[in-house]
Amino acid sequence: VNGVRLGEIVAALGGTLDGDPDRTVERIAPLDAADTASISFIAHARYRGQLAASKAGVFIVSTAFADDVPPGRTRIVTPDPYLYYARLTQWWAARLRGRRPAARHPSACIDPSAAVADDAEVGPFAVVGPGAWVGAGCVLGAHTVVGAGARIGDGSRLAPRVTVLDGCEVGRRGVLHSGVVIGADGFGFAPEQGAWTKIEQLGAVRIGDDVEIGANTCIDRGALGDTVIGHGVKLDNLIQVGHNVHIGDHTAMAGCVGIAGSARIGSHCTVGGGAVILGHLEIVDHVHVSAATVVTRSIRKPGHYSGVFPFDENASWEKNAATLRQLHALRDRVRTLENKP
Amino acid sequence: VNGVRLGEIVAALGGTLDGDPDRTVERIAPLDAADTASISFIAHARYRGQLAASKAGVFIVSTAFADDVPPGRTRIVTPDPYLYYARLTQWWAARLRGRRPAARHPSACIDPSAAVADDAEVGPFAVVGPGAWVGAGCVLGAHTVVGAGARIGDGSRLAPRVTVLDGCEVGRRGVLHSGVVIGADGFGFAPEQGAWTKIEQLGAVRIGDDVEIGANTCIDRGALGDTVIGHGVKLDNLIQVGHNVHIGDHTAMAGCVGIAGSARIGSHCTVGGGAVILGHLEIVDHVHVSAATVVTRSIRKPGHYSGVFPFDENASWEKNAATLRQLHALRDRVRTLENKP
Amino acid sequence: VNGVRLGEIVAALGGTLDGDPDRTVERIAPLDAADTASISFIAHARYRGQLAASKAGVFIVSTAFADDVPPGRTRIVTPDPYLYYARLTQWWAARLRGRRPAARHPSACIDPSAAVADDAEVGPFAVVGPGAWVGAGCVLGAHTVVGAGARIGDGSRLAPRVTVLDGCEVGRRGVLHSGVVIGADGFGFAPEQGAWTKIEQLGAVRIGDDVEIGANTCIDRGALGDTVIGHGVKLDNLIQVGHNVHIGDHTAMAGCVGIAGSARIGSHCTVGGGAVILGHLEIVDHVHVSAATVVTRSIRKPGHYSGVFPFDENASWEKNAATLRQLHALRDRVRTLENKP
Repeated sequence: VNGVRLGEIVAALGGTLDGDPDRTVERIAPLDAADTASISFIAHARYRGQLAASKAGVFIVSTAFADDVPPGRTRIVTPDPYLYYARLTQWWAARLRGRRPAARHPSACIDPSAAVADDAEVGPFAVVGPGAWVGAGCVLGAHTVVGAGARIGDGSRLAPRVTVLDGCEVGRRGVLHSGVVIGADGFGFAPEQGAWTKIEQLGAVRIGDDVEIGANTCIDRGALGDTVIGHGVKLDNLIQVGHNVHIGDHTAMAGCVGIAGSARIGSHCTVGGGAVILGHLEIVDHVHVSAATVVTRSIRKPGHYSGVFPFDENASWEKNAATLRQLHALRDRVRTLENKP
Repeated sequence: VNGVRLGEIVAALGGTLDGDPDRTVERIAPLDAADTASISFIAHARYRGQLAASKAGVFIVSTAFADDVPPGRTRIVTPDPYLYYARLTQWWAARLRGRRPAARHPSACIDPSAAVADDAEVGPFAVVGPGAWVGAGCVLGAHTVVGAGARIGDGSRLAPRVTVLDGCEVGRRGVLHSGVVIGADGFGFAPEQGAWTKIEQLGAVRIGDDVEIGANTCIDRGALGDTVIGHGVKLDNLIQVGHNVHIGDHTAMAGCVGIAGSARIGSHCTVGGGAVILGHLEIVDHVHVSAATVVTRSIRKPGHYSGVFPFDENASWEKNAATLRQLHALRDRVRTLENKP
Repeated sequence: VNGVRLGEIVAALGGTLDGDPDRTVERIAPLDAADTASISFIAHARYRGQLAASKAGVFIVSTAFADDVPPGRTRIVTPDPYLYYARLTQWWAARLRGRRPAARHPSACIDPSAAVADDAEVGPFAVVGPGAWVGAGCVLGAHTVVGAGARIGDGSRLAPRVTVLDGCEVGRRGVLHSGVVIGADGFGFAPEQGAWTKIEQLGAVRIGDDVEIGANTCIDRGALGDTVIGHGVKLDNLIQVGHNVHIGDHTAMAGCVGIAGSARIGSHCTVGGGAVILGHLEIVDHVHVSAATVVTRSIRKPGHYSGVFPFDENASWEKNAATLRQLHALRDRVRTLENKP
C-alpha cells in the first residue's frame, strides 16, 4: 500500500481534511512510532502530550485537539478519532489483503448432503459434515471442521483449524480464530458410588451475528438447552465458556476468562483478562469486571467490580499474607481493645 | 426422537413408573423449561420449590419428593434421580445419534505398521503413526493425530482434532475433546550462563480407563518417568497438566485449572475452575479445592480448601486492597495498643 | 537404548569419570526411582540426603558432593550436574529418536510460490501458503499451517497441528508444540454506539531464535507494529500473549500466564504459572513474578514480586475473607483507638 492519497481516505471514511488531498501516507502508526509518511491519531486526552513530539505527517483528531496539531502537518478532523482509526484499519486491510477468489480447495472433504454457498471459500483439508449449511461469502480456513447439521451464517470467516461441532450455529459476519472449539461436551457428571457417570450433553451452541471469538477459545454445548452467545459479543483468546451459559449482546471479554456452567451474563458488559465467573449466577447488563477478579455470586447492580490481591515485593507480600490468615483473630483483638474500659 | 414411550424408558433404566407406560415424552428438560411433552427431574432438595410450578408432564423423583409432584402428572420414582437423569441422557443420546457405520475415511493416513481395529472409525485426514495401536470400537475424529507407538484403548472416542503424541497411552472408553494435546514436551530447562538449555522430555503420558478430557486441555509428557492420569478422572476444558503430575482415580477438575510439574494429586478429589496447583507438592485423597484457589503447599488432610480475594464494588476493593498492603503494620499497631498500660 | 557405555557419555559430554568406562547404563532416572542400571544426578543440595538411599549405579555430581556417593558406585564429576543432565537428555534423545529421513509427505499442500528447504521434513496434511519460507532442516508436523509470507527459520521444529499465520516469523531452532497459534488477530475494538467496531490488526509476530512455545499457547499479531518475542524465550502451555507485547531475551513463563496487549517485559525474567500481566505497562529485566500473581502496574526494579491470597481450610478462609471486606473500616477503628487519650 504505497502512497495512499488522503483524498481517497476522506472520500471513503468522511472527516474534514485540513490539508492537501493529494498528499499520500504509507502507513498507519501510533503517535510515538510515526514518521512523516505515517497517519496517526489521538484517541484520548491522556495522549495529548505526545502530539507535539510525534513525527506523524497526518493526524486524525477531534475538534477539541485540532489546535494541538503542530504547524505544517495535515489533520483530519472527526468527532471520534478512535472510531475513525478503526474504520481506517478496515479500509486499509481491505486494500492490502485484496479479495481472494472464492474457491473450494480440491482436498476439502464436503459431504454431499451439505449446502455450501457457491461463493464460499473452502481451504485445504476442510471438513464439512452431513447436512451442514455454510452461507454466502463465508471463508473456511485450512483444517476447519464444520460438523453434521452445523450452520455458518453469511459472511463468516473461520480461520485455519476452527472446529464447529455437530448442530451448532454461528451467525452472520462471525470471525472465529484458529483453534476455536464450538460445541464440545459440557462438563456434566452424576456421582455414582465414588465414580462419575456422564451426563450426555444434548444441547448445542447458538452464536449471534457479528461475534468474534479468539484463538483456542472453547464454548461448550448445552446439557439440555443451548449455550447462547448474543449479537456483537467479542471474546478474546483462551476463554472457557461452560455449558448453558448465556452472554448478552455486545459484551466483551479479554483473554483467559473462565465462565462456569449456567452463568447468565448481561449485555454491554466487559470482563477483564483472567477473571473467573462461577456457575449458576446472574450478572445484569452494564457490569464491568476487572481483570483476574473471581465473581462468586450474582451481580444485580450495574457498576465496576474488582477483587485482586495487590502484588508487592515478595517479602512484604509474605508478611501481609501471613497476617491475612489471622485477620479474623485480629478483628477480635480490635474489638477487645474497643471494649476495654 | 419423537414420542418416546415411558414403558421403554423404565424397561431400559429401571425405576417405578407411576402412570401410563404408553404415555410419550419428546424431550428431557430442566424443571423451569419443561412443557407437557417433557420429562424432568428433581436432583436436589433446593429445587423442590420449582416442582409445583413446572409444566413437565413427567417427573423423575425420589421417594422423599414423590408426593410433591403435582396431581395429574406422571412420575418415575428412583433412589437417585440425578443419576437416573444421567443414564437417561446416555440412553437418549444413543437413540438420537445412532451408530455410525465404522469406516476408515479414504483420506486418512494410517502407517502400514500401525494396528487399527477393524471396527474402529477413522475420520477424514486422521493420521496414525508407525507402530500405533487403536483398539476395538474406537472413533478417531477428523484431523486426529495418533503418534508413533501411541495406544488408544478399546472404545475410546477422539473428537475431531485431538493429538496424542508418540508413545502415549489412552485407556479404554476414554473421551477426548477437540484440541486436546497429550504428550507435548514438559517445561524443563537448565540455566546456562543466562540462557536456558532444554531438558529433553523422555517420559510419556499414561491415562487410565474411563477418562474424559475437555477441549484444548494439555497433558505434558514426563521428563524421565511418566505423567499418570488415573481411572475415571474427568478434566474439563483448557486445563494444563505439567510433566510428571499424578492424578488419582476419579478426581474431577473444572475448566482452566493449572497444575505444575510433579504435583501428586489424590483420588476422589475435586478442583474448582481456574485453580492453580504448584509443583512438587502432594494432595491426599478426598480433598476439595475451591475455584480460583492457589495451592502453594501440600495438603495432607482431606477437606475443603479455599483462597480467593472476595470481589466487591471497585471503590471498596481499592480501599481494602490498599489497606491490605499495610496489614502487617496494622497488626503491629494493634499489638502496640494491646501493650499500652 | 540398551547398554550405553559411560565412556561414550563422557566422550560426548565431558566430566570426570570416576569408574569403569565400559560400564553401561540403560536409563536416566531421578534419585528415588533409579536402579543399578540407571544413571542419576544430584542437582541441588536439598537432594543430598537422598543420595545414600538411591539405588542408582552411576551418579552425576559436583565436586562438593562427590564424597557423598555411596561406595561401590560410579560417579561422573562435573561443575554443574543439572546442566550435565540436560545435555545428557539431549544426547540420549538424539540416539533414541534417531533422525527421520527428511521427506515431504505427498498429502502436504505446498503453494508453488513457497520456498521450502530441500531437507525440511513436511508431514501429512501440512499447508504452506503462498510466498512462505521454510528454512533448512525444519520439521513441519502433520496438520501444521504456515501462512502466506510467513517465515520459519533454519532448524525449527513445528509439532503436529501448529499454526503460524500470514506474515509471521519464527527464528532459528524454534520448538513450537501442538496447538500453538501464532498471529491470530489481537483483541482490538472501538466502541460505537454500544457496539464494537473491529480494529483490523495490521502487524505481525516476530519471534527470535531458540524460542520454545508450549502446547495451545497463543501469540497475537500486532495492531499496527509487531508483537515481538526475543531470543531464547521459553513459554509453557496455554499462555496468552496479547498484541504488541514485547518479551525480552531469555525470559521464561510457566503455563496459563496471560499477558495483555502492549505490555513490555524485560529480559531474563521469570513468570510463574497462572500469573496475569495487565496491558500497557513495563517490567524491567531480571524481574521474577510468582505464580498466580496479578501485575497491575509497571515494575521498575529487579526483584521477586508476589500477590496471592493464601489458601486455607474453607471455614477459616470464609471468616478471613469476610473480615477482609471490612479491612478499611478495621483500620479506621484502630486509628480511633490510637487517638483515644
